Amino acid sequence: MPNQIPAYELTSQNRQVILARRPDGVPQASDFSLATIPVPKPAAGQFLVRNIYLSVDPAQRGWASAVANYSAPVALGTPMRALAVGVVVESGHVDYHAGDFLYGWFGWQHYVVAEPAQVVLRATHDLPLTAFASLLGINGITAFLGLTELGRPIASETLLVSTAAGSVGSFVGQIGRRMGARTIGLTGDDSKVARCKQRYGYDLAINYKAANLEASIATAAPDGIDIYFDNTGGSILDIVLRRMKVRGRIVQCGTASIPDWTVPPTGPRNEREILLRRLVWSGFLIFDYMQRYAQAADALAQLYRDGALVYDVDIEDGIDKAPGAIAALYAGENSGKKLIFVG
Amino acid sequence: MPNQIPAYELTSQNRQVILARRPDGVPQASDFSLATIPVPKPAAGQFLVRNIYLSVDPAQRGWASAVANYSAPVALGTPMRALAVGVVVESGHVDYHAGDFLYGWFGWQHYVVAEPAQVVLRATHDLPLTAFASLLGINGITAFLGLTELGRPIASETLLVSTAAGSVGSFVGQIGRRMGARTIGLTGDDSKVARCKQRYGYDLAINYKAANLEASIATAAPDGIDIYFDNTGGSILDIVLRRMKVRGRIVQCGTASIPDWTVPPTGPRNEREILLRRLVWSGFLIFDYMQRYAQAADALAQLYRDGALVYDVDIEDGIDKAPGAIAALYAGENSGKKLIFVG
Repeated sequence: MPNQIPAYELTSQNRQVILARRPDGVPQASDFSLATIPVPKPAAGQFLVRNIYLSVDPAQRGWASAVANYSAPVALGTPMRALAVGVVVESGHVDYHAGDFLYGWFGWQHYVVAEPAQVVLRATHDLPLTAFASLLGINGITAFLGLTELGRPIASETLLVSTAAGSVGSFVGQIGRRMGARTIGLTGDDSKVARCKQRYGYDLAINYKAANLEASIATAAPDGIDIYFDNTGGSILDIVLRRMKVRGRIVQCGTASIPDWTVPPTGPRNEREILLRRLVWSGFLIFDYMQRYAQAADALAQLYRDGALVYDVDIEDGIDKAPGAIAALYAGENSGKKLIFVG
Repeated sequence: MPNQIPAYELTSQNRQVILARRPDGVPQASDFSLATIPVPKPAAGQFLVRNIYLSVDPAQRGWASAVANYSAPVALGTPMRALAVGVVVESGHVDYHAGDFLYGWFGWQHYVVAEPAQVVLRATHDLPLTAFASLLGINGITAFLGLTELGRPIASETLLVSTAAGSVGSFVGQIGRRMGARTIGLTGDDSKVARCKQRYGYDLAINYKAANLEASIATAAPDGIDIYFDNTGGSILDIVLRRMKVRGRIVQCGTASIPDWTVPPTGPRNEREILLRRLVWSGFLIFDYMQRYAQAADALAQLYRDGALVYDVDIEDGIDKAPGAIAALYAGENSGKKLIFVG
């Protein structure tokens, strides 16, 4: 399928979504403000990018937080840190040319003056442009590397995935199934249960809100779970951990179920379960694997061209939709990778 | 050093330590009774072992518990499951001869009729007999394989060990140091602190009862901890986990600080720490590695012959000391691997 390049229009103004205050937990629309400034000019070695799709990612919660974690907090009064797909409209860099489509750290704004270090991946014309912010974005690559590097499913193992219809989980399920695992998805409503099975090929899917989760998991995986790819943490994790098989692997990829860590929440102690089940519980962050990003993207792109993977995007229109988008994501309101079209 | 074979005397009676009731947490002397029965006779394919050193191990708490874990509970009214070093006194098996010294599953009793599957290791005459129940016992091999397989220290990394002067920890510290790690020991009194440093070569040792542990660890490892070899779990683990470096490894080898898991204790949730620090938290049980036991024992024996390792044993005399020995172990009263001499 040829790249569908959306129409984009050059304007003389740069609209930006500014982080106005530190969120209390999940960022809300009221934590941001909109600003309009002139379009900046690239200097030598730089290039001007016009964003087309702004990415909305669960990780933005952490980036907006004042709590130091794996990256510096976004400074108050500056554009919200974000990935985006954009097009070069003016270049002072020999390797970047007007018309080049790029996926990179371009922020929630219409325009950005960028340098090569901000570019994650160059978009090619043989895939839809949205693929570069979803299948080949940090969520798709996280699914691929998190599962293959830490989960390491082998044929006939049981793979359980939380947020199974989400922007990471939907790929984990599909890739795990291709690797021969029996896949079980946990998701938050019945329409997503159906999508997990019909579109992402899960062998089973469970609405964790409707079910007696402990009993449902016991029925779905009577012999236990080999791999738990966890994007949520919290009470679901507590249940699943106690259903893991000996030598099972837990890939901690997110903690979406717990909105606030400023007052550390408590839960059942896990050290004895880890010992007696000989679990391996690992944390995965894509930013440790950036040197392998392009290779993983090639592998996923090929699976997509072969018809072995599908991806879904949930696109809203206009930059004024960005401020409330993270909260909507945590509320599970999206169906597919959430993007804001600003082209 | 030639093997010092203790004198042993054949009697016509077999004294046994019987598990009389299910312990409430750590087994106490009152959970056991002593029995005297005639010495059994080996049939064809069996051999009679006269025990010399009975092993006292933290894992016996789990074996005596009714809660199913990695092995079936010891049946009430039967001899307490235990490792021991003994000598073959009568054999109906072609590969075992009177005078062969063995380390194996011989129970807390003077005599046992055994089969080859119960033998863990044959004792050779070039090492002291006590080495086979300590350095080359499950504790020494656990230290060696747990550290090299899951901890994987590399030169200049910081290795923290709990129960650092104990029967596992003392070897973890010594082996880690030989691998080039900076070693820090946690232990429960000042004499053990001194022993950690003077005898086991720890770079630093901390009395976790005397100190403000959080501050002491921060001072001892200002850049954080690469590897935590944990035999205790509980509140010390909670502190250490939050001082781990990015991509640190926690080896969960025991949970000695928590006497009872029948009412699941709670603690701070760790999934976000695991994610943000990209930890790998693994459980280690020696019984997964029995096919590599002999090879590991060879490596440790060679280190001992080279003078690169020391081991300590804390020997009590007489089988009537066995019933109270597990509780004494959990109270940290031993200095060195605890054995009961019954030769």
